[in-house]
Amino acid sequence: MNAEEVQALISAGLPMADDIGFTVEKVRPGFARARVPFSEKSLRPGGTLSGPTQMALADAAMYAAILATLEKAEMAVTSNLSINFLQKPAAADLVAEAVVLRMGRRLAFCEVRLLSGEGEEEQLVAHVTGSYALPSRG
Amino acid sequence: MNAEEVQALISAGLPMADDIGFTVEKVRPGFARARVPFSEKSLRPGGTLSGPTQMALADAAMYAAILATLEKAEMAVTSNLSINFLQKPAAADLVAEAVVLRMGRRLAFCEVRLLSGEGEEEQLVAHVTGSYALPSRG
Amino acid sequence: MNAEEVQALISAGLPMADDIGFTVEKVRPGFARARVPFSEKSLRPGGTLSGPTQMALADAAMYAAILATLEKAEMAVTSNLSINFLQKPAAADLVAEAVVLRMGRRLAFCEVRLLSGEGEEEQLVAHVTGSYALPSRG
Amino acid sequence: MNAEEVQALISAGLPMADDIGFTVEKVRPGFARARVPFSEKSLRPGGTLSGPTQMALADAAMYAAILATLEKAEMAVTSNLSINFLQKPAAADLVAEAVVLRMGRRLAFCEVRLLSGEGEEEQLVAHVTGSYALPSRG
Repeated sequence: MNAEEVQALISAGLPMADDIGFTVEKVRPGFARARVPFSEKSLRPGGTLSGPTQMALADAAMYAAILATLEKAEMAVTSNLSINFLQKPAAADLVAEAVVLRMGRRLAFCEVRLLSGEGEEEQLVAHVTGSYALPSRG
Repeated sequence: MNAEEVQALISAGLPMADDIGFTVEKVRPGFARARVPFSEKSLRPGGTLSGPTQMALADAAMYAAILATLEKAEMAVTSNLSINFLQKPAAADLVAEAVVLRMGRRLAFCEVRLLSGEGEEEQLVAHVTGSYALPSRG
Repeated sequence: MNAEEVQALISAGLPMADDIGFTVEKVRPGFARARVPFSEKSLRPGGTLSGPTQMALADAAMYAAILATLEKAEMAVTSNLSINFLQKPAAADLVAEAVVLRMGRRLAFCEVRLLSGEGEEEQLVAHVTGSYALPSRG
Repeated sequence: MNAEEVQALISAGLPMADDIGFTVEKVRPGFARARVPFSEKSLRPGGTLSGPTQMALADAAMYAAILATLEKAEMAVTSNLSINFLQKPAAADLVAEAVVLRMGRRLAFCEVRLLSGEGEEEQLVAHVTGSYALPSRG
C-alpha cells in the first residue's frame, strides 16, 4: 500500500483520526510518517496539544506503518500502547514517525516518535511504543 | 472537589473529553468513576470502540481522581500512560474506574480499569497505568 | 498445580529466581503469592532492594500465577513487563501478589503488586503489569 | 565520567550487576554501551537468556548513560522500566545500547536496545524504555 491507500483506509475506518485531521505523509515497508495539523480543539490547559490527540496520532501512525508492511493487515488491533510525554508540544502541527521494530507472526511491535516544529527546530515531544495483534494467517 | 466541580473543570479545559461525552459520575479522595456514552463516532473496524476513545477516557479519569485528591492540581499533566487492550468492548457505554496508587511529591501514579456493559455483565476491557507530574508546591 | 509443584518447576528452570531465594507461598487459578527474603546482595545505594530483584520477583510471580491457571504452560515466555517503582522498599522481605487479569488464547495479561513489610505495616512499593505469550495449543 | 569510572561506581553499588558480569564498554554524554557475557546461570527453559538478566542489563545501562551525562547523579533511582521481549536471544553475550532521550529537571527518560550476536549477525532482542528520578539539585 502507498500513502494514499493507507490514508483512505484509515479515514474510512477511524472517524476520530479523520476528526483530528490525521494525514499520512509517507510510507514504506516498516515505516510511516503522519501529521496532525494544529487545531484549537486539541488544546488543553497551558495551551499545549492534548495527550489524547498525541495518543490518537501515535496509534494511527503505528497502524499506517503496519498496513505499509504487511498485506491484509486491516483487522490488526492495538494490543498495548505506552506513551511518555517528554515536553509540551508547541502550538503547531504534530508529526509522528512510526517504525516497525519487530514483525512477528502474532504481534507487530512499533516505536513512534512525536515531533513538534519544523526542520532544525523540530523537537521530540513524546515517545511511544506499542504492539498490534495481527490477524491469523491461514 | 466533588464530581460536578471536577466535571466542570474537565469540560472547560479538555474540549476532546467534552467531545466524547466524558461524564464524571463519582469522586472521592484517591478515586474517580467516569463514563463515555456509546457513539457511532468512536467506532473502529469490527464495530468496537476505538483505542483513542479508550485512552482519552482513561487519561481524563486519572486527572479526575487526582483533582479529587489534591488541592490546586489543575496544572498536573500526564507524564506516562500505558494501556493494555484486553478484549473488544461491546457497542455500549464505557466506564472508567481510576485509583491513585501513590501520591508522591512530584508524581501521582494511577491505575484505571475500563469496563464495558452493566452489572453482572460488566467486563474488564482495558487496563491502564499512568503517572501525572504534579505542579510544584511552594 | 499447587504451590510446591510451581516452586519446583521455577527452581529447576530459573536459576536466578533460586539465587534470590524466590519462594511460592500460595497459588490458586488466576493468582500467586511469592516472596523473596531480604539479602545484602540485593541492595543498591541508599540501602534499598535493587530494581532488578523487584523485577525478577514480579516476573516469576506472573509465571507462577499462569502455571497455576493453565495446564502445560511451562513454555510460556514473558512478552512485556512494565514496572513502576512507587517507594523504596524497607530492608525486609519483599512479597509479590500476581493476578491474571485476562487469559487469552495467545497472551496472558497479569498485574503484580510488590509489598514490603508485614500486616498493617505492609506498603505497596512497586506496581507491575505484564503479558506472557502462551504456547500454541493443538 | 568515563567508562571505567561508571563501571567502578556500578560494581560497587549494584552487587547484582557485578554478579551477571555487567561491563561498561563505552560512554559519552547521553549514551552508554554495556555488555553481559553469556553464562549458564542466566538461562531459562528453552536455552535462552532470562528476562531478569535482560532487565538488569537494561536498567544498569540506563544508569550508566545518566552517570555519563549528569554530574552527581549517583543517587538517581529507576522510576519506571518497560521492556518488550522481541525474540529469544542466542546463547551468546548480550549488549545494551542506552540513549538518554530527554534529560529533564526531575526525570531522565531513556531508551535501550538489547542486541544479541556480533556485527552483521546482530539482532534486536528486546526494546526498553525507562525513566530515572533525578536527585534534587540545590
